[in-house]
Amino acid sequence: MTAFQFELLKTTKTSRGTARRGRVHTAHGVIETPIFMPVGTVGSVKAIRPDLLKSEMKAQIILGNTFHLYLRPGHKQVEQLGGLHRFMNWPGPILTDSGGFQVFSLAKLRKMSEDGVTFKSPIDGSSHHLTPEFSTQIQHSLDSTITMAFDECTPFPCTHAQAAESMRLSMRWAKRSRDAFVQREGYGQFGIQQGSLFEDLRRESTEKLLELDFEGYAIGGLAVGESSEELHHAVPMAAEMLPEHKPRYLMGVGYPSDIIKAVMAGVDMFDCVLPTRNARNGMAFTCEGVIKVGHSAHKLADIPLDPKCDCHTCKNYSRAYLHHLHKEDEILGHMLLTQHNLHFYLQLAQTLRDAIEAGTLEQVGNALLEHYR
Amino acid sequence: MTAFQFELLKTTKTSRGTARRGRVHTAHGVIETPIFMPVGTVGSVKAIRPDLLKSEMKAQIILGNTFHLYLRPGHKQVEQLGGLHRFMNWPGPILTDSGGFQVFSLAKLRKMSEDGVTFKSPIDGSSHHLTPEFSTQIQHSLDSTITMAFDECTPFPCTHAQAAESMRLSMRWAKRSRDAFVQREGYGQFGIQQGSLFEDLRRESTEKLLELDFEGYAIGGLAVGESSEELHHAVPMAAEMLPEHKPRYLMGVGYPSDIIKAVMAGVDMFDCVLPTRNARNGMAFTCEGVIKVGHSAHKLADIPLDPKCDCHTCKNYSRAYLHHLHKEDEILGHMLLTQHNLHFYLQLAQTLRDAIEAGTLEQVGNALLEHYR
Repeated sequence: MTAFQFELLKTTKTSRGTARRGRVHTAHGVIETPIFMPVGTVGSVKAIRPDLLKSEMKAQIILGNTFHLYLRPGHKQVEQLGGLHRFMNWPGPILTDSGGFQVFSLAKLRKMSEDGVTFKSPIDGSSHHLTPEFSTQIQHSLDSTITMAFDECTPFPCTHAQAAESMRLSMRWAKRSRDAFVQREGYGQFGIQQGSLFEDLRRESTEKLLELDFEGYAIGGLAVGESSEELHHAVPMAAEMLPEHKPRYLMGVGYPSDIIKAVMAGVDMFDCVLPTRNARNGMAFTCEGVIKVGHSAHKLADIPLDPKCDCHTCKNYSRAYLHHLHKEDEILGHMLLTQHNLHFYLQLAQTLRDAIEAGTLEQVGNALLEHYR
Repeated sequence: MTAFQFELLKTTKTSRGTARRGRVHTAHGVIETPIFMPVGTVGSVKAIRPDLLKSEMKAQIILGNTFHLYLRPGHKQVEQLGGLHRFMNWPGPILTDSGGFQVFSLAKLRKMSEDGVTFKSPIDGSSHHLTPEFSTQIQHSLDSTITMAFDECTPFPCTHAQAAESMRLSMRWAKRSRDAFVQREGYGQFGIQQGSLFEDLRRESTEKLLELDFEGYAIGGLAVGESSEELHHAVPMAAEMLPEHKPRYLMGVGYPSDIIKAVMAGVDMFDCVLPTRNARNGMAFTCEGVIKVGHSAHKLADIPLDPKCDCHTCKNYSRAYLHHLHKEDEILGHMLLTQHNLHFYLQLAQTLRDAIEAGTLEQVGNALLEHYR
């Protein structure tokens, strides 16, 4: 078996920090970084066959949501059926979140304590109690390649005092998550740095996480309502505190432009529902910006979504056809747009990896930023 | 270019008539018969990528609906975009219905005359007038490989007088459809035999159609509410009147058992929304009958839908996973069940073709009928 390990292949300085080309070795395969992770919330990357996700879209790792999978079908059922990889026919690496973010999104349906969070299921109203230990156990049952520590998602905006209190609770929970994690060859657990936009708190958080010696570190509490300027001020500040020889994951980010900037600042891993969710709303990411396929301008457009794209959708279908499928709300429309958008995000990651290797990330990144949102 | 031609390869007697193994040569490729045609109502076989429909499900010809495509995106638009084959990325043969069946389904929204049918669009309430000539022109614009004559779908039940009147109108419309059809190398037009369950009317209808020398003949007006016994009494009676050296198409039929019986009676071509529509309702056709994946019995079933099936779905996913996708209403669930059901129908056609070639259809067909609905 492979040890879980981050191999740092190359670094390159940019105006935003030190970008990195790396390789994460796991029990379920190798991940070339920087990488984007498609989101498979309930055990399915929506509208995409997992074999094609790999063979055609070149996905290397996907994300599963602990909260959703715990509620349905249930982690014990997934465990009984051989784990999430086998259940959903995705043999590659899987990262699961801790469930914290979703639970905190329930607002009035949840109640927090030092021990954890009690919440009511949005499916059937039943009562549940999630703790750092239980979240870690659920992720173990799912057979997650990368387990995330259980944390509180600090609300935004918040005062320094609120951010400090929330971060310190998350750090106590990080310790309990780490203690509950069962080490297995090729599996890893990531701690999550918090502290909102406050540098001193992010530094304190980082120090506490480093004591626990996680296999990787996430930057949490961003992409929660702050401005783009605030986000891209915080990312380099947060990233440069993290250890060089561990992978860095910026949670829930984001637009192509956000990913480019964060890679330039030294982030390795990303996840976001934008490419999949926006696809189902008829929005395509292209080298010339976002295209809404439902717009009447595309009714007779006998050209691909993105003339520079070599994905299955762009090679075989016109904007006019995608416009028609969108108007008819045909499932094939969701499938083809999702395929394009995931290809776009994964191809972007490939372009950024190539640019780091070639030492041209500053120019390549800035050139892409002229077109991408 | 290829002439449109039906090559009769072999016949074999059964208890239901004379079954046939044939080959239809068209401008868009060869169709091995008997064959099932997946339905692509608005220019998409729902939830299936057309390239996989061919490469994985072995579809040879698909069906498009003139009524739907006329209303949206419009036949002129499809023509401008290179025809339906190019528009939807399906280079193989396409059969289009005449639009008659859908128009007559509109009930109070339509008004009939000798000339044709006036109806209101269910999309925007606009008024339209469909005639044999116009239906034929629309299908020409769509670049349909096989054009269907415009007919009235005789209601069921009906008196002999009603059936006669309706059939004779359809035969006058068949003449006008034939006159409006532009002959092109490798393209064909099928006339539709009517007459409800009355043998003398079906014979009169057949005689009138034969005068027009269509490239193929359909059996219409069945699967509209009659009992299974009535259907399978009518099919052999209707089929044996039709010329031996032209393809025979039983419209809108049906369940696997219906197809087996009709093939034994000498029918060559079938279409039905059952495999695709039922898939989206969580119903799978298997060698042991219909399975409802949403049933709690499948919650932990770590076995394929159909242990004898070698489709992509059965090779890679458990019933438990399909059950979960169904409960979550995940698009992937629709995709995987549709893939299985179409594979099942197309594999059934392959099995029947093989049995005819081997001269074992009587035994093979009856054995299948013990399990299939």
